[in-house]
Amino acid sequence: MVRLKPVVNDPQGLVVTEALHALGYDEVEGVRVGKFISLELGDGDPERARARVEEMCRRLLCNGVIEDYRFQLSEGGEAS
Amino acid sequence: MVRLKPVVNDPQGLVVTEALHALGYDEVEGVRVGKFISLELGDGDPERARARVEEMCRRLLCNGVIEDYRFQLSEGGEAS
Repeated sequence: MVRLKPVVNDPQGLVVTEALHALGYDEVEGVRVGKFISLELGDGDPERARARVEEMCRRLLCNGVIEDYRFQLSEGGEAS
Repeated sequence: MVRLKPVVNDPQGLVVTEALHALGYDEVEGVRVGKFISLELGDGDPERARARVEEMCRRLLCNGVIEDYRFQLSEGGEAS
């Protein structure tokens, strides 16, 4: 899961907030839109998989300047 | 969390897969990219909040033809 840091503006989230208000969902006070990335991995070793996914996040999946990420490994080797 | 149904092609996921392979992560067998949407709600009643978020997903946040969704409420009233 990769999402914008809390201090970064999220125009997409603002548009969704406005759209929800227009539909009558006035209880919505804020919306943030991030990415949910599922990786299917062929590597069975959880320890190594964790280190590799960490590296993928830093090198490609997440822009560390404006985004945060977190992930979990699940059985069968899928990380998200 | 809103993501494409498993039967639907995910071109964005294919591009990320190729990019990860190009960086040497050959253990990646597949990538799917979905949305992670956080809602901040002003409604304190979890029962009603759950029903309303369900409705928001069906009406706006998720395209039921090609996407699936799931969400959870967390304390403080944030749904994602």
